[in-house]
Amino acid sequence: MTNKIDIHYCTGCRWLLRSAWMAQELLTTFEGEISELSLHPGTGGIFEVWVNGKRVWSRKQDGGFPEITKLKQLVRDQVAPERSLGHSDSKTGTSE
Amino acid sequence: MTNKIDIHYCTGCRWLLRSAWMAQELLTTFEGEISELSLHPGTGGIFEVWVNGKRVWSRKQDGGFPEITKLKQLVRDQVAPERSLGHSDSKTGTSE
Repeated sequence: MTNKIDIHYCTGCRWLLRSAWMAQELLTTFEGEISELSLHPGTGGIFEVWVNGKRVWSRKQDGGFPEITKLKQLVRDQVAPERSLGHSDSKTGTSE
Repeated sequence: MTNKIDIHYCTGCRWLLRSAWMAQELLTTFEGEISELSLHPGTGGIFEVWVNGKRVWSRKQDGGFPEITKLKQLVRDQVAPERSLGHSDSKTGTSE
């Protein structure tokens, strides 16, 4: 379990609260898989989530913020691809 | 502003919530000074706070958890030693 999550958020947009909430959701769901989760204050409307150096969400490219279930699927696909996330789960890309 | 904070907490003790709360307090107070704040899930009753690789709090050595004002003073001393933290502030070591 050496997975690292990075969340970059815009301080000017006051996105610390939602970033910290998402951090806690991820650390709870992936308690055994995540070794480090970092919050990075940023500027310019940034909101990005990275898993092991791979960007899995970008507000500017993906359009807004992920639903938390979607975010967990994206992280799951990187850190524990065989794991089911339960009743709300579906494979990434088939949930829309 | 290239200061990094690391918070290590015991998942078995369910200390994610207080760690995430302290993370948000620090990221709010030191918004311009912190470049990265990492949460590290751990075991065995660990609760430690590190600033730029220097441990400023250890539950086992310091006895329990820091008050949030005390923790901010300890972080301030590393990242912005000239800064006053306001009405509840005092220099580290003179607050007891």
